[in-house]
Amino acid sequence: MNRLHVKYRLFLFAVAVLAVSFGYSQTAQADDSLPSWNEGPSKKSILEFVKKVTKKGGADFVPPAERIAVFDNDGTLWSEQPMYFQLAFVMDRMKAMSPEHPEWKQKQPFKAALEGDLKTVFSGGEHALLELVMATHAGNTTEEFSQIVKDWLATAKHPKTGRPYTEMVYQPMLELLAYLRANGFKTYITSGGGIEFMRPWTESVYGIPPEQVIGSSIKTKFELRNGTPVLVRLPEINFIDDKAGKPVGINQHIGRRPIAAFGNSDGDLQMLQWTAAGQGLRFCLYVHHTDAQREWAYDRESHIGKLDKGLDEAHEKGWTVVDMKKDWKVIYPFQMSYLKK
Amino acid sequence: MNRLHVKYRLFLFAVAVLAVSFGYSQTAQADDSLPSWNEGPSKKSILEFVKKVTKKGGADFVPPAERIAVFDNDGTLWSEQPMYFQLAFVMDRMKAMSPEHPEWKQKQPFKAALEGDLKTVFSGGEHALLELVMATHAGNTTEEFSQIVKDWLATAKHPKTGRPYTEMVYQPMLELLAYLRANGFKTYITSGGGIEFMRPWTESVYGIPPEQVIGSSIKTKFELRNGTPVLVRLPEINFIDDKAGKPVGINQHIGRRPIAAFGNSDGDLQMLQWTAAGQGLRFCLYVHHTDAQREWAYDRESHIGKLDKGLDEAHEKGWTVVDMKKDWKVIYPFQMSYLKK
Repeated sequence: MNRLHVKYRLFLFAVAVLAVSFGYSQTAQADDSLPSWNEGPSKKSILEFVKKVTKKGGADFVPPAERIAVFDNDGTLWSEQPMYFQLAFVMDRMKAMSPEHPEWKQKQPFKAALEGDLKTVFSGGEHALLELVMATHAGNTTEEFSQIVKDWLATAKHPKTGRPYTEMVYQPMLELLAYLRANGFKTYITSGGGIEFMRPWTESVYGIPPEQVIGSSIKTKFELRNGTPVLVRLPEINFIDDKAGKPVGINQHIGRRPIAAFGNSDGDLQMLQWTAAGQGLRFCLYVHHTDAQREWAYDRESHIGKLDKGLDEAHEKGWTVVDMKKDWKVIYPFQMSYLKK
Repeated sequence: MNRLHVKYRLFLFAVAVLAVSFGYSQTAQADDSLPSWNEGPSKKSILEFVKKVTKKGGADFVPPAERIAVFDNDGTLWSEQPMYFQLAFVMDRMKAMSPEHPEWKQKQPFKAALEGDLKTVFSGGEHALLELVMATHAGNTTEEFSQIVKDWLATAKHPKTGRPYTEMVYQPMLELLAYLRANGFKTYITSGGGIEFMRPWTESVYGIPPEQVIGSSIKTKFELRNGTPVLVRLPEINFIDDKAGKPVGINQHIGRRPIAAFGNSDGDLQMLQWTAAGQGLRFCLYVHHTDAQREWAYDRESHIGKLDKGLDEAHEKGWTVVDMKKDWKVIYPFQMSYLKK
């Protein structure tokens, strides 16, 4: 084939590709990107914000590189009741490790955790929880730990629904993540949960790669084991990514201020404040757990995911507050089939 | 305009765009992506690695999401002689701050730094350097510090060439960064230098956004100042991203093991070891400073950027060692004009 002929064939092929993609983009525009969201002020506020920051030449336009959106995880992207899912992991892991630790049967908070007595565990406060985390999360390499998390997730079931924990994610938030990414946003997780507990599954479940996960961490140490480099996980806190720690973690990892932040508790308040205080149009959203029937209803008095100060500040500042009961057609992806019937 | 007419006009426009881009991509293919690299084993090893990991269906194919490449900065992407550029910043900043600190005139290492007496500063070891960094890098907010760095870079000149520091970058490495990105790689900086010292300029100079910069850091604290949230920089080390710290920093920020690593000193050795030890094809490269005329020549005995153990291990393991004198047609972008003459 001569060169001109090749060019002509490539041209025809390109036109065909173009015709298909042109037809596709028309369909995409007609589609609703947030099908599990009921029409109302919450959905409207999201769509309007995205429209404004992506409108070239508009007063509120934000270049794609600066379209950073941060999401809390527990209670914002997946359920956190009846206990943080990572705590279920801690307790299962303790059971698996207990034969090597006969001393746990005599010593709090280990004894209570082994017996499933959450009340006693919580009565020890943050210190007791950290003790349990250290005992179950350290001592292995980063790669070993990642495998342990994957193995646990493959078999563990949520105590209420009997579903794998990775199915207890919010369908409307999955749609929101995808919608933001389709509009040039980079989506991050900023969770109080363990960074290495989340990374093994956030990519397949949320489409968020490990480098866009920010969380609490323990220290690691580089070592050569028989000539092979490993990172060993140490029983020492490195960083707590909660409350005033969230803006610190965001700055450390991202180095830019987000233009949109999504949370569900007072632990997210400083992250929302930090986001809102940036120059230009910003978007802050609280997921308010109002649906006792399909999920859980809790806010000001809850032990887990308490939303009190944050709710006041959201109302005062006009942030979007999602009413799960009113705003969401479904909660979980596995409920989608009911919707279609 | 009726709908069909709009479609037709859009179609014509798209064909025009396509024709232009088609012409462009042909040119790009014909071009050499690494024009400042002389032909030879170094250039060949880079091209072969990229070809193998991007070849769909090939034995060494790596999906784009896993194409992580990490680069040291000082001595790898820009010069580090006669002293780390951040140290020049520290000393200039001390001069600017000294009227508020009369005590510095009597106290080491401050006295020596103010007098430009590097020998005495270095004799105090890492501790003395850290003292100077704390005194000059803390006490302001993250946004204030970013502005201080930008203002300094806008006027500061390299003592030997009289050029702005941001022009003392290596043209062949700029081409390499762009070439890797064009092949689906995500490029990161992993430097012993300060993360907040680098972030204000890495995007414009290297095309590396702030979220892909890993470096040493001091702690920060979230505060509400008259109701405005700020992050205050504290005189306390958070993380030293050097030697065994580099794999730790990489894991913390990226959460995946790189498939390619680029350094120039023993401070990068653990990063290269960590990269090389991953499963599948990996690429490790040392920049060897061999050009006393166009840059500087130093390795085993140098105080700055010492390359000793790393050089032995590179030869032993068959890593690529760039001979700057032989392998690079030019060192700096401002020399490109000479090349064209």
